[in-house]
Amino acid sequence: MKNTLSAAVILIGNELLSGSIQDKNLGHIAKTLEKKGIRIRETRIIPDIEEEIVEAVNHLRLKFDYVFTTGGIGPTHDDITSDSVAKAFGVQNVVQQNVFDKIQQRFSEKGIPFTKAAQRMAYAPEGSEIIKTQHSIIPGYRKENVFVMAGVPSIMRLMLEGVVDYLNTGMEIHNITIHANVGEGEIAAQLEEVQAKFPEVDIGSYPQDKNSEFSKYRVIFVFKGTQMSDLEEARGSVMKILNDSKFDAVPI
Amino acid sequence: MKNTLSAAVILIGNELLSGSIQDKNLGHIAKTLEKKGIRIRETRIIPDIEEEIVEAVNHLRLKFDYVFTTGGIGPTHDDITSDSVAKAFGVQNVVQQNVFDKIQQRFSEKGIPFTKAAQRMAYAPEGSEIIKTQHSIIPGYRKENVFVMAGVPSIMRLMLEGVVDYLNTGMEIHNITIHANVGEGEIAAQLEEVQAKFPEVDIGSYPQDKNSEFSKYRVIFVFKGTQMSDLEEARGSVMKILNDSKFDAVPI
Repeated sequence: MKNTLSAAVILIGNELLSGSIQDKNLGHIAKTLEKKGIRIRETRIIPDIEEEIVEAVNHLRLKFDYVFTTGGIGPTHDDITSDSVAKAFGVQNVVQQNVFDKIQQRFSEKGIPFTKAAQRMAYAPEGSEIIKTQHSIIPGYRKENVFVMAGVPSIMRLMLEGVVDYLNTGMEIHNITIHANVGEGEIAAQLEEVQAKFPEVDIGSYPQDKNSEFSKYRVIFVFKGTQMSDLEEARGSVMKILNDSKFDAVPI
Repeated sequence: MKNTLSAAVILIGNELLSGSIQDKNLGHIAKTLEKKGIRIRETRIIPDIEEEIVEAVNHLRLKFDYVFTTGGIGPTHDDITSDSVAKAFGVQNVVQQNVFDKIQQRFSEKGIPFTKAAQRMAYAPEGSEIIKTQHSIIPGYRKENVFVMAGVPSIMRLMLEGVVDYLNTGMEIHNITIHANVGEGEIAAQLEEVQAKFPEVDIGSYPQDKNSEFSKYRVIFVFKGTQMSDLEEARGSVMKILNDSKFDAVPI
């Protein structure tokens, strides 16, 4: 897709891999970035293991314009993201004094001991830029093209609001859809022709599960791209195919 | 974790990366595999791009005992999983005649043309073993240690039921939890000591979002491992710490 930037997301945490917790961040990050013309091209879900984080960060930061991580920046023993990102960049994980002071003050107000464990939340790799985040004293940060954010969705969302100010942007990516009662196999050959005719439109075809939100329709076709006129033309071509064959279809 | 096997999951599909569709397969696969003593150690979400699928399959099948893929085995132009897995193994993607005949018959019964596009659902990499799946004529398959399954959750679940018969198993992995009203920073140092004392127990600490299912409690501690006696002992140690400091905590 022309005039867009690329990104990868690294979701860090054993709990996401084991099914204990369902990720709720990726979809939100993707939709936020699409408005800025940035497409997520790969996501990795990895455990709280230093060498896995180092490898993922170093592989993906060279391959894509941006990398976003979630998780592992709290105070417990499995929160090793900052140490690992520092290692990936070959720098020290150092205290951010302003952040340290603010967290210390908050702990003091609440009468909670500011333990060594809790102090780790105030560390970031040398050369990082702390992201200003409203309503959260624990900040995310930027190290070159890597953005480090929390795993808890409500905190991650606040951090992401701050992060977007640091991003170069491409052209906004739009989505339009058709909901249709058609078997994918019945339209696949013609759909491929439409895709070939509109190389700058990303046409996806997603069969719907019986229990899903739009289960009234068997398939959703998604048209994605930066030029709304292209999307509408491509969608018009598919609507014509569906209408000509008398399939029930609704452009949305 | 001793006596367990390792696995990776590759979720294939642009729609999962763009936030159009939320994955519903990973959690189910993880929980099914844990009962068989198999832990997911990495998950990648990648687009419908051949070289990305080839790279992920080849990297992960050498690194872990098993690889499971979901998505991209339907009839549309973006369904390129079988072609890509074949390429990863350096073999041809060939027609599976039994499968072909069954799908052809089904299409014929329904009066749907069995197009070239639809026929692609009957292909699998040379040397694959078709997985017997109840209630679905489109089968998943095994190529060495790589299992290829559908992306639609209801179909994926049927396939996975067949897949588990092909797997070597380790010791079942158990989970027990504590729900507690405590700040992570208040217990992190002591939690680390418990983790050090029980290296075979994977202790995770997950702050809960205000809107989450268990929002009554601020943190959930998860104890995971193959020896239930170890888990209960580790959980007992953490319960004692919480009780001694008068934090509200419930073992579940």
